[in-house]
Amino acid sequence: MRKILITNDDGVKSKGISHLVEMMLPYGELTVVAPFEAQSGMSVALTIGKPLRLTELKSGNGLKVYACSGTPADCVKIAMNQLFPDELPDFLVSGINHGSNASIASLYSGTLGAAIEGTIYGIPSIGLSLCSHKQDADFSGVTHFGKIIIDNFIEHPVGPDAYLNVNFPDLKPEEIKGIKFAKQGRGKWIKEFEQREDPYGFKYYWMTGEFLNLEPDNEKSDNNVVESGYVSVVAHKIDNTDYDEVNRLKSLWKI
Amino acid sequence: MRKILITNDDGVKSKGISHLVEMMLPYGELTVVAPFEAQSGMSVALTIGKPLRLTELKSGNGLKVYACSGTPADCVKIAMNQLFPDELPDFLVSGINHGSNASIASLYSGTLGAAIEGTIYGIPSIGLSLCSHKQDADFSGVTHFGKIIIDNFIEHPVGPDAYLNVNFPDLKPEEIKGIKFAKQGRGKWIKEFEQREDPYGFKYYWMTGEFLNLEPDNEKSDNNVVESGYVSVVAHKIDNTDYDEVNRLKSLWKI
Repeated sequence: MRKILITNDDGVKSKGISHLVEMMLPYGELTVVAPFEAQSGMSVALTIGKPLRLTELKSGNGLKVYACSGTPADCVKIAMNQLFPDELPDFLVSGINHGSNASIASLYSGTLGAAIEGTIYGIPSIGLSLCSHKQDADFSGVTHFGKIIIDNFIEHPVGPDAYLNVNFPDLKPEEIKGIKFAKQGRGKWIKEFEQREDPYGFKYYWMTGEFLNLEPDNEKSDNNVVESGYVSVVAHKIDNTDYDEVNRLKSLWKI
Repeated sequence: MRKILITNDDGVKSKGISHLVEMMLPYGELTVVAPFEAQSGMSVALTIGKPLRLTELKSGNGLKVYACSGTPADCVKIAMNQLFPDELPDFLVSGINHGSNASIASLYSGTLGAAIEGTIYGIPSIGLSLCSHKQDADFSGVTHFGKIIIDNFIEHPVGPDAYLNVNFPDLKPEEIKGIKFAKQGRGKWIKEFEQREDPYGFKYYWMTGEFLNLEPDNEKSDNNVVESGYVSVVAHKIDNTDYDEVNRLKSLWKI
């Protein structure tokens, strides 16, 4: 029986993770270790300097559910150390995230932070994200195409030191055109803060912002793939050394 | 006059950032925007769902100092938006971190999270870390070799979409053998938690762990370069697409 670790960054009570659990139950024994509360935008952050708590919420019928007080990467670390001390799970699935993790959102993503941590532990890891922040988001497109992706992922998993980032368009299953491999698109956010004044006359700032696509015409970039109605699949490396840049600077610097 | 943005992850009052400010003052006008409190291990995490505060602590003699309530990446974002709305700073220096950011520590590093954010904004960005957690750490080796690195960085900055990660051995200037370009070393942590019981009988966990070097003989990996007495310089990319893996899976998956 396969042992599968499930986590996310929207918290153990989010709609996305309950859809993921339902989708994954036929594949093996599930252990869910997810944050107590929303941990969006936490990247691979770890909790250092304060202790972590791990609470069992549910156990039975091939499903164990734990809540952890830390970040998504903490969830994976504590699962590996405390729940799988002898034999690691077969693979990790993180999500289903509420919102896009395409382009540079992949750098900030807690969903993918968990996938990075799974990769460091040496198990195949994949993050799934639905490009919708709606409260009543429709996950039927994700679960339909998600099963095709998980079937392929089990037969041909991602290689060592890499993980997969899958983004689903906010469309019904019959409207989604298919699945395409892609690359991390270039982009940036602009106008990132809304300045307000608190009741005592002091300024404070809400992070908001508009996304600027820096590759509007590149049909291989993940956000463009999703915008054109396909599911995007990107493989990311945990070694992000820029070997070309190392060689270029080596020839120029006087050290 | 050059405009230089300074930040870190150990907090605005840490010893490392005050040594960095002293080292950087001859190079231009400095704007420091650093976290109120320690934000180690925060990676590129952002503060979403609660507002940020920005407080001016000091201004004069070519030095402005602000504290921000958020993460290192938040510090850079708020600096770019609120303090440099018309013209961005010439470059960003993050650090001097208390502790190594070599090998996979680079993935968790708040110091480098800030450098990633600077890179997304399109300015050359560099993170400096001293491989010592001692309270009375000696920064003289960093500031001696740091000036050589900053001189080279100004003459030949890192290219677009990349940033530099510099790690200094915990040695006196005369003991340091030189500066070497390197790659991100492979490694992992093991035995990551210490389990304790609180006064009420509930378990809790402190993150600790031992680092396992997975490339003990690779003289090009950053942690080995530092352990052999050199300063290591690694260029990292913000596009961490694994193009080879994308192509491999594309030929295997039935989608």
